[in-house]
Amino acid sequence: MRIHIQNPSADHPFAITPAQWEAAVARGPALGPLEVSFAHDDAGFTAAIGEAEVVLTWTCEVSERLADGRLKARALRLRVVACTSAGLDRLAPFDWLPPDVLLLNNRGAHADKAGEFALMALLMLATHIPRFASNQREGLWAPRSGSVLAGRTLCVVGLGTLGGAAARQAAAFGMRVLGIRANPAPHPHCAEVHGTEALDAVLPRAEFLLLACPLTPQTQGLITRRRLELLPRGAMVVNMARGAIWDQDAACNLLESGHLDGCVTDVAVPEPLPRDHRLWRTPGMLVVPHVSSDDPNTYNDRTLDILLRNLAELRAGRPAPNRVDPAKGY
Amino acid sequence: MRIHIQNPSADHPFAITPAQWEAAVARGPALGPLEVSFAHDDAGFTAAIGEAEVVLTWTCEVSERLADGRLKARALRLRVVACTSAGLDRLAPFDWLPPDVLLLNNRGAHADKAGEFALMALLMLATHIPRFASNQREGLWAPRSGSVLAGRTLCVVGLGTLGGAAARQAAAFGMRVLGIRANPAPHPHCAEVHGTEALDAVLPRAEFLLLACPLTPQTQGLITRRRLELLPRGAMVVNMARGAIWDQDAACNLLESGHLDGCVTDVAVPEPLPRDHRLWRTPGMLVVPHVSSDDPNTYNDRTLDILLRNLAELRAGRPAPNRVDPAKGY
Repeated sequence: MRIHIQNPSADHPFAITPAQWEAAVARGPALGPLEVSFAHDDAGFTAAIGEAEVVLTWTCEVSERLADGRLKARALRLRVVACTSAGLDRLAPFDWLPPDVLLLNNRGAHADKAGEFALMALLMLATHIPRFASNQREGLWAPRSGSVLAGRTLCVVGLGTLGGAAARQAAAFGMRVLGIRANPAPHPHCAEVHGTEALDAVLPRAEFLLLACPLTPQTQGLITRRRLELLPRGAMVVNMARGAIWDQDAACNLLESGHLDGCVTDVAVPEPLPRDHRLWRTPGMLVVPHVSSDDPNTYNDRTLDILLRNLAELRAGRPAPNRVDPAKGY
Repeated sequence: MRIHIQNPSADHPFAITPAQWEAAVARGPALGPLEVSFAHDDAGFTAAIGEAEVVLTWTCEVSERLADGRLKARALRLRVVACTSAGLDRLAPFDWLPPDVLLLNNRGAHADKAGEFALMALLMLATHIPRFASNQREGLWAPRSGSVLAGRTLCVVGLGTLGGAAARQAAAFGMRVLGIRANPAPHPHCAEVHGTEALDAVLPRAEFLLLACPLTPQTQGLITRRRLELLPRGAMVVNMARGAIWDQDAACNLLESGHLDGCVTDVAVPEPLPRDHRLWRTPGMLVVPHVSSDDPNTYNDRTLDILLRNLAELRAGRPAPNRVDPAKGY
């Protein structure tokens, strides 16, 4: 099989290296003979595209080089386009994609880091770290006992890569995980899974609430002030979804009133957050600048693992796990 | 077997309840018939001590009621005194203890919480949370990618309850753990264990350093400025031991110079830390007010589990794991 990796530029921090490729092939599934080429410029792309059966690249490169209307004419042997992003909304509409070429996204590459971030945030809340960080601003030594996670109840909204990884870590530490998602199919790490319409009934049981759903017209503003008030007094919230999922001002108000005990948010409205924004100053609110899911040290390894696993599934005649439906866009 | 639990006071937040006792017996080892009494005052103690074979109590209660010179005359059937503290230095010298009475401490009760604290601190450092918390004081949104723990190297100084629990969690997340302790016996969660004399040779390999040793004349000032400088540039440090273990001022200087990337300290010199102390203000230093190992929600359960396990070992004719040697004091 002939695979072409089109990197964004030679010295890009995320560029995939031949050494990373070799290591991934060595630990990956048996795929028969693989020929690989690397390029980061137009000449390299032009030289490779005529023979490549699989192209792995970045969404910006797809926009520039593959979605230019010439793909069908140039890429005569192309069967798979794999992208290094989980969300491919920037490539829609997908009319540039020949109907016999499969499009793969990178769903799952963020799982390890996101799971560790979620676990970290839950441990921080159980230990009252956001409050201690606020106290540190005042030079205030005010001990307060925390708790272990075991036996406590967590509601996870969204059970995709991020929410699923969060549920896995929380369950491993003995938490009771209540999942919320549009399609309430069972989940291996959730004690219960409910549809979004059951949110109001589940929130009063959630000592911890973790937001990990995609931002869509259905989820925008999902966590209103009223819903935050449905949480039990002293509840704690992690937002690793998008700032527009919750009523950010209400979260601040409810921290100030004591209804919420602490929050860790990886997202904000707007980003970057202006210097004088109240989110920075609200006691019990810990602000992280949108870094929960990226790990440059392991991202390329996970990306290559995902590609090779998909190629192995296709070779065995099974559906590719990361296939994107051009009609739906995910 | 007749067991007496002498609580510090009826409404003390840590008082052991009959319900906690029943639950511990139900989940614990088979011990034959157990009779238990509870008291929190002098009358209750006086009524129970003549018949009790085992007394479970607090070090303050021991000082007041058991170490008053009358124990041998009053406690005719007493065989075991179990204390709810891990460190019993406040009860020395142990001349109040009849030679045929076994003294047990509560070593191990802190393991779960301490292990979760250690993991949390390592995840926070790998995600640059201390730096983000410093940036939050300035209203500065400055993203910086973190990493997962897998594959990174941690040196743990001290492999008792706290350090052992830290090593266990770190190893479970794929870290390479290098242990340092006075007696360098192998440890199940350490890739290597070295004696304290090897510290200078190990430190240059430690991306993360976690301090969890007891404060003794041997460990006071162990982590000097020179030793912090032996860490690789960008190293991160967790101190959950005692503030006097490290050169706290040097840690601040090395954060300011960029040699250290971040620190999480649960301890300080002095405690409580005065409002204007530089530790509060040093960028990259996150200060936690000495709460790493206490969990009031589970402490009594662990205390009772430890007592029952020790009684089961004694009943089987084996040594009690939590026996304190009065000559050594631990």
